[in-house]
Amino acid sequence: MEDIITLDYGSGGQKTSELIESLLLPAFDNPALRSLGDGAVLPGAENLVFSTDSFVVSPWKFPGGDIGKLCVCGSVNDVCMAGGAPRYLSLSFILEEGFPMQSLREIAASIASQAKQAGVIVATGDTKVVERGKGDGIYINTACVGFLRAAGLGKDSIRPGDAVILSGSAGCHGAAVMMARAGLAQGSALVSDCRSLHQLSEAALCAGKIRILRDPTRGGVATTLNEFVEGTAFSIEVEESAVPVDPPVEAACDLLGLDPLYCACEGRMLAICAPQDADAIVSALRTLPGGEQAARIGTVTGSYPGRVVLHTRLGGTRILAKLTGRQLPRIC
Amino acid sequence: MEDIITLDYGSGGQKTSELIESLLLPAFDNPALRSLGDGAVLPGAENLVFSTDSFVVSPWKFPGGDIGKLCVCGSVNDVCMAGGAPRYLSLSFILEEGFPMQSLREIAASIASQAKQAGVIVATGDTKVVERGKGDGIYINTACVGFLRAAGLGKDSIRPGDAVILSGSAGCHGAAVMMARAGLAQGSALVSDCRSLHQLSEAALCAGKIRILRDPTRGGVATTLNEFVEGTAFSIEVEESAVPVDPPVEAACDLLGLDPLYCACEGRMLAICAPQDADAIVSALRTLPGGEQAARIGTVTGSYPGRVVLHTRLGGTRILAKLTGRQLPRIC
Repeated sequence: MEDIITLDYGSGGQKTSELIESLLLPAFDNPALRSLGDGAVLPGAENLVFSTDSFVVSPWKFPGGDIGKLCVCGSVNDVCMAGGAPRYLSLSFILEEGFPMQSLREIAASIASQAKQAGVIVATGDTKVVERGKGDGIYINTACVGFLRAAGLGKDSIRPGDAVILSGSAGCHGAAVMMARAGLAQGSALVSDCRSLHQLSEAALCAGKIRILRDPTRGGVATTLNEFVEGTAFSIEVEESAVPVDPPVEAACDLLGLDPLYCACEGRMLAICAPQDADAIVSALRTLPGGEQAARIGTVTGSYPGRVVLHTRLGGTRILAKLTGRQLPRIC
Repeated sequence: MEDIITLDYGSGGQKTSELIESLLLPAFDNPALRSLGDGAVLPGAENLVFSTDSFVVSPWKFPGGDIGKLCVCGSVNDVCMAGGAPRYLSLSFILEEGFPMQSLREIAASIASQAKQAGVIVATGDTKVVERGKGDGIYINTACVGFLRAAGLGKDSIRPGDAVILSGSAGCHGAAVMMARAGLAQGSALVSDCRSLHQLSEAALCAGKIRILRDPTRGGVATTLNEFVEGTAFSIEVEESAVPVDPPVEAACDLLGLDPLYCACEGRMLAICAPQDADAIVSALRTLPGGEQAARIGTVTGSYPGRVVLHTRLGGTRILAKLTGRQLPRIC
């Protein structure tokens, strides 16, 4: 590890893992934390799921959402991905002196609307203010408590032959925020996928045997897939042609030099499931808003232990590594 | 309200209340939030208590603690004050690019040690990194989940004649941080009172009939007492001579032009209790570390509805208003 914190440590990729595994995890080690899921099933209160996220997205408003919508979806989705039904949200602001009251009002309205949609209440909160130049307008932390709905999710249950499902197109959120940051979002068809996953995760859990769920946020689909198999005897083989990517995302990524597979999603779900249930799960997802493009994108195999491999459209095969360093700072 | 956020809105005093009551509460209104306690008893899961706090204290290390110790005590204490026994902590960092890894390691160790002492585990977490100049080294958010231990605490149960107890001396945390900020802490006897209140609150709840508990953080003892009686038909009358204030705090406050009654505590508890139980509660607190100076400092009366009144050492009487504006920015 380096001597100082760099932006890479916040990327959600290799450096973030390094920070967690070599500094944070050893300090706080316990079974709940060790699973390194998006949310934790609480030891001694196994009916409860708990998650947290801080949001520092820049700009705070982007096509398809804002930091308010994002901060609800982020923590709600983490509870969903841990197999929980989200119910209670905590909400804490770090505001920079000079932030417009009208923007705060707009963000509060966005939080309220998204919370209603996701079926959670803001149960408790906090507000801090820092001096001008010690923040960037607004940072928000949310934590979410929910009730466990499906126990035993986790990478330990993944088996060769399992199917890998993605609930929608890759990389919309990351591409939309980067275009907004570059001042290029106006008039573009590019919209963040930011959305609460409570319905999609519930539908997947009802439709078949799910091994693990995770939303591919920082580091994108490629990094999350790597988290599923790293340190195991299994690999994931992905068919590039099966991964839905919207044309405006493709175009934006070309323009910005990004790869959609490494761009953050904020309303997509990766699911690994028993092979015989894959079709039923995909069909169930496709009936729901935000799941219309759900697709089976790959398979768990034993051919490349611990690795994710992409079978490209051109017939080639390449390793899809975890994101190293930063691709997109402050994407959420 | 003003058009922009000013530091006053983060003071914990009048302006913070204004922001909460006129902007945030209307947006998210629900019974859990409306109680405006430090922690919320969750509707539909009334055995659970949930709290959150963000920490932006500057400097991050001060005599008697650091942001790591503080971020555990803060959320743990909020659960305790809501009548809960704290169990699970979420932990989220917002780090500024360039923050020394060694400092982060030190803070993590401090969090781990304080969590152990308070009987909570770090169950889930998150790390974000912002660019240089968009933060101030380190901000931390914690949320805490605990199990309800005493139901029905709240200002509705306060009655004339009730006793007001303070678990220790006033204002140590605020005075210690301000002295550290002024570079005057070295060699001084001034130490923050930062401490987990799980033992003291448990002892108070066992020793007698508690009406309400709260830890006097931002805005200090004076502001918290006001929160107990504002909007009610009752008043609180405080005997200045009964409020323990440590001589180094007195001296620091004189030097800095502060009033110890408005300086934040981070390890003190204000309790209102049935009059006949006051002596037993004070005695119980005094047997515990951090409670040695516990004292009955005042009484609930009907003489000045909605007000807090101080009977001074000199025999005078004055209104002790809620903190208006900022006294101490970034104290926690």
